[in-house]
Amino acid sequence: MTPTITAFESSPDRGKGLARDMRVRWALEEAGQPYDVRLVSFEAMKKPAHLALQPFGQIPTYEEGDLVLFETGAIVLHIAESHASLLPEDANGRARAIAWMFAALNTIEPPIVEHTTAMLFEKKEAWYEQRRPMLEDRIRKRFAALSDRLGDADWLEGGFSAGDLMMVGVMTRAKSSGLVDEYPNLAAYVARGEARPAYRRAFAAQLAVFTGATQAG
Amino acid sequence: MTPTITAFESSPDRGKGLARDMRVRWALEEAGQPYDVRLVSFEAMKKPAHLALQPFGQIPTYEEGDLVLFETGAIVLHIAESHASLLPEDANGRARAIAWMFAALNTIEPPIVEHTTAMLFEKKEAWYEQRRPMLEDRIRKRFAALSDRLGDADWLEGGFSAGDLMMVGVMTRAKSSGLVDEYPNLAAYVARGEARPAYRRAFAAQLAVFTGATQAG
Repeated sequence: MTPTITAFESSPDRGKGLARDMRVRWALEEAGQPYDVRLVSFEAMKKPAHLALQPFGQIPTYEEGDLVLFETGAIVLHIAESHASLLPEDANGRARAIAWMFAALNTIEPPIVEHTTAMLFEKKEAWYEQRRPMLEDRIRKRFAALSDRLGDADWLEGGFSAGDLMMVGVMTRAKSSGLVDEYPNLAAYVARGEARPAYRRAFAAQLAVFTGATQAG
Repeated sequence: MTPTITAFESSPDRGKGLARDMRVRWALEEAGQPYDVRLVSFEAMKKPAHLALQPFGQIPTYEEGDLVLFETGAIVLHIAESHASLLPEDANGRARAIAWMFAALNTIEPPIVEHTTAMLFEKKEAWYEQRRPMLEDRIRKRFAALSDRLGDADWLEGGFSAGDLMMVGVMTRAKSSGLVDEYPNLAAYVARGEARPAYRRAFAAQLAVFTGATQAG
């Protein structure tokens, strides 16, 4: 059964890979799973029909027969569990890859979102420039630890996994701040993820929503 | 094999249930799984031996034979997958419970942590009182959506699951702000979680680290 995901009808980044449906598209492409996309307007996201799928009025959602899922992490994990190639076959390796998914979402992403939110909503406030170095240092603290752990490896645990997919997906949101580039091995890690054919297909499909090119997937 | 978890030797909350090992202890108690605890000092948490287990220098970690895990979400999911009682048996129900775990960690917890961090580190700054209502409103926005979804149900999806465990665990961190009490059904939901025998055993074991009572678990 072909799953259907939701994505922004009008993404704040105009389809440059930062909206969270990108991570789900990428997982589906890695899995070789075709999918349909339903675009949702900001207005419709706050209406009962969408809230029934996504209690917090966000995208993406995932529908597959009777199953309705929300939360990017849960959707990517479901895809990874239903298809080979995104999780190691041995139980311990699988648990470790899932640990990196949670690390991406609960340890790395929060300070990145805090920094982005301040840029979006507090830039005109007197305190913005005073707080900015502190917010950047919170990200640096996490990036430094991640950089130490990654070392000169290609991926976080042996081969590419859903843990890397989520980590790269989260880190792309910090690229424009210049903070990723302060850690050359992390910058190379993100570039390695973005160079994967599945990432490129997902990126093209997301961008096509805005350029009007034929929808891939 | 009895797993070993790590916890603060000297918890900032003096064992009142807010440190993240509480969520792991609670899951182990729900699962009826005995466990050992190794206490770690703030100094030791930043040393290579601990960083090998937890790349970001935090607690808890989980060791079980050859398996080493970090990230509370990953540890609780591993426990839930290895024992009955924390995840529904049907595949769709299981995926939904996991979605609530991710919602707790990636949608509900970040604004709570942002609010707590500001209280801890920015309270003396001129902007603190100006920013506080905004930070509280970010939490309220999530709580209002969660309250709407929960309605008059006891738990988020049918019976109690790892999703509720993680959500209640996250929300206990917002109790002192008074924001949970603004949503009576959420306050009752958190109280319902805290009243579970497994929660109470875990809480007592965590508190005993500081009162010097015999370590439970």
